[in-house]
Amino acid sequence: MTRFEKSSRTLKELVSEAVMQALADSSAAPRDVEAAYVGNAVAGLVTGQEMIRGQVLLRPLGIEAIPVFNVENACASAGTAFHLGWQAVAYGAQDVVLCVGAEKLTHEDKSVGLSAIGTAVDMEARAGMAATMGASPDSAKRSFFMDIYADMTKDYMHRSGATTTQFAEVAVKNQHNGALNPRAQYGGDLTVDDVLSAREVVWPLTLLMCSPVSDGAAAAVLASARGLRGLDASRGPRVRASVVVSGNRHDGDDPSAGSAGRAAALAYEAAGLGPEDLDCAEVHDATAPAELIAYEQLRLAAPGAGPELIESGRTKLGGRLPVNTSGGLLSKGHPIGATGIAQLCEATWQLRGEAGARQVEGARVALTHNGGGWLDGDSAAMSVHILSRD
Amino acid sequence: MTRFEKSSRTLKELVSEAVMQALADSSAAPRDVEAAYVGNAVAGLVTGQEMIRGQVLLRPLGIEAIPVFNVENACASAGTAFHLGWQAVAYGAQDVVLCVGAEKLTHEDKSVGLSAIGTAVDMEARAGMAATMGASPDSAKRSFFMDIYADMTKDYMHRSGATTTQFAEVAVKNQHNGALNPRAQYGGDLTVDDVLSAREVVWPLTLLMCSPVSDGAAAAVLASARGLRGLDASRGPRVRASVVVSGNRHDGDDPSAGSAGRAAALAYEAAGLGPEDLDCAEVHDATAPAELIAYEQLRLAAPGAGPELIESGRTKLGGRLPVNTSGGLLSKGHPIGATGIAQLCEATWQLRGEAGARQVEGARVALTHNGGGWLDGDSAAMSVHILSRD
Repeated sequence: MTRFEKSSRTLKELVSEAVMQALADSSAAPRDVEAAYVGNAVAGLVTGQEMIRGQVLLRPLGIEAIPVFNVENACASAGTAFHLGWQAVAYGAQDVVLCVGAEKLTHEDKSVGLSAIGTAVDMEARAGMAATMGASPDSAKRSFFMDIYADMTKDYMHRSGATTTQFAEVAVKNQHNGALNPRAQYGGDLTVDDVLSAREVVWPLTLLMCSPVSDGAAAAVLASARGLRGLDASRGPRVRASVVVSGNRHDGDDPSAGSAGRAAALAYEAAGLGPEDLDCAEVHDATAPAELIAYEQLRLAAPGAGPELIESGRTKLGGRLPVNTSGGLLSKGHPIGATGIAQLCEATWQLRGEAGARQVEGARVALTHNGGGWLDGDSAAMSVHILSRD
Repeated sequence: MTRFEKSSRTLKELVSEAVMQALADSSAAPRDVEAAYVGNAVAGLVTGQEMIRGQVLLRPLGIEAIPVFNVENACASAGTAFHLGWQAVAYGAQDVVLCVGAEKLTHEDKSVGLSAIGTAVDMEARAGMAATMGASPDSAKRSFFMDIYADMTKDYMHRSGATTTQFAEVAVKNQHNGALNPRAQYGGDLTVDDVLSAREVVWPLTLLMCSPVSDGAAAAVLASARGLRGLDASRGPRVRASVVVSGNRHDGDDPSAGSAGRAAALAYEAAGLGPEDLDCAEVHDATAPAELIAYEQLRLAAPGAGPELIESGRTKLGGRLPVNTSGGLLSKGHPIGATGIAQLCEATWQLRGEAGARQVEGARVALTHNGGGWLDGDSAAMSVHILSRD
């Protein structure tokens, strides 16, 4: 993956760097790639490239003629592209595939990226949603995703007793980790007070509790056992479970009932593993409170016990189950269509012992959790992956 | 599929009609669908729904929780969505899937649809392309796809000796067929002179040689043998080959060298069938000359023999190999992200003997050809399917 940052580089340049890294890492040449699954969410609105995004991005690398599938699932676009590539390899349709996630959110007009992010809801229903939430019409025009997250956070505070201090602790942890990740957009040693005193975005969210606007790309080569024999290098990890689901109408108070809970349950079942087997996890902390909610949905904590888990320190580096060692979306950055594969990159480096200063010693099993969009009270799309060292 | 037309209905309403038809046709309930593959090309620019298009379109039908994959490949988006659904079923990942193609191109501002279509090229290279072709900057701004087709047509005339009269004969044939198809946007008995004397779009293309702006949706349920056992009805046809490729740089004079030629060769090989086995075909006649070029790429005619095939009458209804019995893109209409599955609907009706006044007697094998986008002298994406009655 590229470093995530506000970049002056084009989407082509970012994808080129990520794909060349992935090919080199797997000792694959462009001609070894049998199909490409390319995730991107908003290039149509940000760069104007509404169609044939993958073909345009891969052609400069000499990747042509093969099937190229352009895949979109909002902020879960990369997790979804990876899943479709995995599905093809796991079931024998292809032996070596390239999965790519890429996003360019910065634009000379700052409102373009935010406005694009705001299309991950039912656009016909958006005005009504904004009114119900008390969000200003102006916020509906740009992106009211942080209004949605604020609403979700207030519900969560009500049922779990979570405090803004605990949310700030998530941000402090992830910014600490991001400082150890050379590919992270931000990172540093902040205090809870720094986070709480940052500019309020929508109560209770401050700027440091929200993932930033980022550009970046991430790529992975997936191979079957047969595909590996044709490559010079066979490097893990193994994909133990790859799950994509859509959202569903459900009781928002039950962390197992929505898309994340269902995807995690399916992933644990497919892998024959449980939350107790995980050594590290990358979760979709688009906001700091979302990480605590994810703890419960992914069964890292019991229902209502998210606040206790962050307080315990067990999800810090050095704890029993470090979460978002990469810095997460909060610190590493969140180029939306790239995030899911970037999480899988971090999981890969952790499982190979290549994560440098943020290495989780002896990590053997990692989970990633990547959600996107919002429809009827749930993420519209959700992907959960479990990887193991061998 | 819905009727193709300039419609006052929303994309949700169009998709609802097509999906309800497909479910009823296969005796499947929404709960039987294990995953949905949804093709759409330009909703981000036309309706503003850049993200989670499939989830938004399917939720009103109670289709939720399952994986929904949003797929884009320009005018081949539906062929690609169908292919990914087929791949999942053929290789055992799912047993019953829903494939959808949908597009809304009409807009109160007429330039919106045309401008959106114009994004199926490398947007960074577009200005240069337009200049090379002698197209006006204005045409580059809206859509210069008809300039691309005109350029391709002039090359084809040069190497095959094709005449504008022969192109007009394609339009006459397809409008005749469209008149027999209640779902076609246009249709009627025109003369060659009508076609030649219509307004010139870009020489040598007249308005009646170009596919129109259309709205519409098409859907299909695909099931494995195991999946069929869970449904009340088991209705053919069988998918004998499903191929998607991307374009490649090649000698434009060799009809076997580009994406359509390669996709057709792979499809014939997978099906164990050749062009001589086809009883009917739906080809991507975005313009009338494109049908003649497709004859050669799909090996319905020898290289250079496209003009002779239309002259012979063999591709008319009643001929040996009727092509575009539905009316094709020219007459049935071309809601770009719906077209590939609409072609497969026509193939299905022909193979079941349900094509009414345009029935090809005893049709047992049908081919569909659906291309999209333009990159370095070839379609960016290409899908070819072969279906058989049993």
